[in-house]
This record gives sequence, C-alpha cells and structure tokens, in this order.
Amino acid sequence: MSEAKNKLEQAAADLQVPKAVVSRLSLYLRELQHLVRDGHETTSSTQLGGLLGFTDAQVRKDLAYFGQFGYPGIGYRCSELIDAIKRILGTNQAWPLAIVGLGNLGRALMGYRGFRHGGFQIAAAFDVDPAKIGKTVEGIQIFDLADVDRIAKERGIRLAIIAVPAPEAQKVADALVGAGIEGVLNFAPVTLNLPKQVQTIGVDLAIELEQLAFAVANQLPQT
Amino acid sequence: MSEAKNKLEQAAADLQVPKAVVSRLSLYLRELQHLVRDGHETTSSTQLGGLLGFTDAQVRKDLAYFGQFGYPGIGYRCSELIDAIKRILGTNQAWPLAIVGLGNLGRALMGYRGFRHGGFQIAAAFDVDPAKIGKTVEGIQIFDLADVDRIAKERGIRLAIIAVPAPEAQKVADALVGAGIEGVLNFAPVTLNLPKQVQTIGVDLAIELEQLAFAVANQLPQT
Repeated sequence: MSEAKNKLEQAAADLQVPKAVVSRLSLYLRELQHLVRDGHETTSSTQLGGLLGFTDAQVRKDLAYFGQFGYPGIGYRCSELIDAIKRILGTNQAWPLAIVGLGNLGRALMGYRGFRHGGFQIAAAFDVDPAKIGKTVEGIQIFDLADVDRIAKERGIRLAIIAVPAPEAQKVADALVGAGIEGVLNFAPVTLNLPKQVQTIGVDLAIELEQLAFAVANQLPQT
Repeated sequence: MSEAKNKLEQAAADLQVPKAVVSRLSLYLRELQHLVRDGHETTSSTQLGGLLGFTDAQVRKDLAYFGQFGYPGIGYRCSELIDAIKRILGTNQAWPLAIVGLGNLGRALMGYRGFRHGGFQIAAAFDVDPAKIGKTVEGIQIFDLADVDRIAKERGIRLAIIAVPAPEAQKVADALVGAGIEGVLNFAPVTLNLPKQVQTIGVDLAIELEQLAFAVANQLPQT
C-alpha cells in the first residue's frame, strides 16, 4: 500500500485529485462498512456503484487515482479496501476533536454517533458560558475557551468543530488557530478568514436546502 | 430572465449542469447578499471569485450555464444577479419545511438562522414522543407524526428534514413520502431507500470530518 500512499501524495500535491473524488471515497467507505456488517467478504465495482447510484466505471476511475485495489476474478476484498481508503483519507489514525459551543447544535454533535465510525473522538468541549464550564456532556468535560491552548496541546487536538452563533465564529476561529488547530469544521453561517495553512470546511445547512429545492423545482433525475 | 429560465430547464433536463455548479450558485448568492448588505450595488466576476477563492473565469463559466447576466463596463448588478440566482435555484418562491425529530439536532435546526435567509420557513415539526407532541419550540407547534398527511397538505409542505436516530429514519421517510413530500434532507447517518421521484440529500457529518482530515493530512492548498 505504500505505493498507493505515494501515488496519493503526489496526486494531492499536483492537485490532480478532484474534491468530488475524495467525497466519493467517503461514500465507498460507508457502503463497504455496511457490506462487511452484512457478512460480505468481497465486492465489485458494479455492486459498490449500484449501492450508491454510480456506474462501475466511475468507481474504478475514482479508485485508480490511488492505486490498484481489485483482484481478477475476485473483485475487491472489502476489509482490505476499507483499510486502504482509511489510509488515503487519513482516518486510519485517531483524530481527537474539539467542539466549541454547547448550544443545541453543539450538544447534538456531542451525541452524534456517526463520528465514532470514522476514528473521530471528541476529546474536549469548550464554551465561554460560566454556567456550562466544568460540567460534563456525553461524558466529555466542558472547558473554558480561554484554556484552549493548554487543553489542545495536552490532548493532541488537531481538528475542531465550531458550533457557536455566527457573530462569535471568527473570534472562536482565531482562538483555535492560536492553539495550533489545523482544521476547522464550521457550522456558523459565516465565511471565516483563516491563515492559508488552516483547512476549513463550512457546513452551511441553508446551502443543502437550496440544492434540494433546486432538485425538486427542476425534477432532476437522481444520481 | 425567461430566457435564462428556459436555458436552465433545458440544461437540467439534459443533465448538463454539474452539481458542483449548482453548489457554487449558492455560494455566489451568499456573497452577493453580503455585498448588498455592505452597500455594494455592482460587482465583477473577479471580486465575486476573489471572495470565494475561485478564478473570475470559473464564475463566468458557471453563470453562463444559465444565461448572460453581466453588463459591459458595469459588471453584475448585485440585486439583479441575486434575483436571477434565486429564480434558478427555485428559492424565489417560499418553501414551507417540516422537521421530523425534536431531539438536540432537531431543536438546533429549529433555531438555525441560516434557513431564514433562503426563503425556507419551518411550517411544522413532528415527533412520535407524546411528551413532545402539542408543545411549541421556537414558535412552531410539534405535531404527532401520524398526522403528517393532513398537516403537510394543509400547509403546502414539500420539503422535510429528517433529524431522527438512524434506526427510525427509513420509517419516517416512508411516512413523509406517503404524505407527498418531494424532497428530504436527511441528517440520520443511513442511506434511505426512496422512490425515484423523491429528491434526497444526505448530510453525513462524519463525511465532512473525513474530508477535513484528508485535507489536513495531505496539506492541500485551499481552494
């Protein structure tokens, strides 16, 4: 697999892997995990694509960015492909996470089971509200955001989720960057100004709804 | 603009508008709304692209799918382009929404301000928990899911958000489809089996985190 990894690094460095391909890797991973849970040891590009509404050619083309994973006459070995995709995504290592903001959304995210599948573990929660600091939610302690430098270093936290109201988000992001956080998942409906080396993904739920409205209004065929 | 609309319908019917283009329309809309709020009457593909980290060529190419919106020597008139994009997305009309599931996530979504910008209005909430039915959250009444047929028809609800635990999601989706819902935004970390004519967008938060981990692990340049 080190060959696949090298190929990945080179491709990523050359910006040759489209974001859409990386998104589909996550979908393949999810379906492969379902297949294993259902007792399947192997699968094919046709089966994997069929589960997601993609063609078999799409599946093969996507995986080909990262190496050669199939066996003639067998197809893909599910658990092997799961390991390979996790290595590619970087989720074969543990990613201790911080969540900032313990309103309804923050609390919902603390209890979100989907995170656990992916090697993501909430290692600390932060808020600025004295009524929340020191309490425990879903077994995780809530710290004062003022202590984020120390806690992030102690717990090896590299990724953080921002779940605060929009007007607070930039200030929180600046504090996280100061604490050495390398990636931010931002739920606040606002664009953050961050240093180039910090990765950001904005989850704007209104955008998802707009895309849904577009699909319904135009009766798009499902893909 | 009827020309743009015709062009859109044709393009959508031919599947010639890539999903990524439609996603970027939402981003353009957001930035245009910021520009208007900041007092700008006109903008350019360079400014609009710059705000989002896209090239001016990308902006022009995306908009060209839907018509001709710029004026020589002026650029784009912000409010005109906002109206055009809303018409394209279908968000120039009101979209009464239902939310199913009033746990932490459902309650967070009820209070999410981002929805209001887009013409989305939560018209009803549903749960199966007798302790919640009949109560009011954020000014919205919580109904018994068993009444979804009647309420959806009365209130013209076409879109619904599923915010229930994964094991309940398919059953809820079936009830929504039975009530004539045309589009579903699904937060449960599970793939739904729905009739082809019902549009679905799955918001899998673990996928967003995986994409972030990939970007951090591979130190991707920001786009």
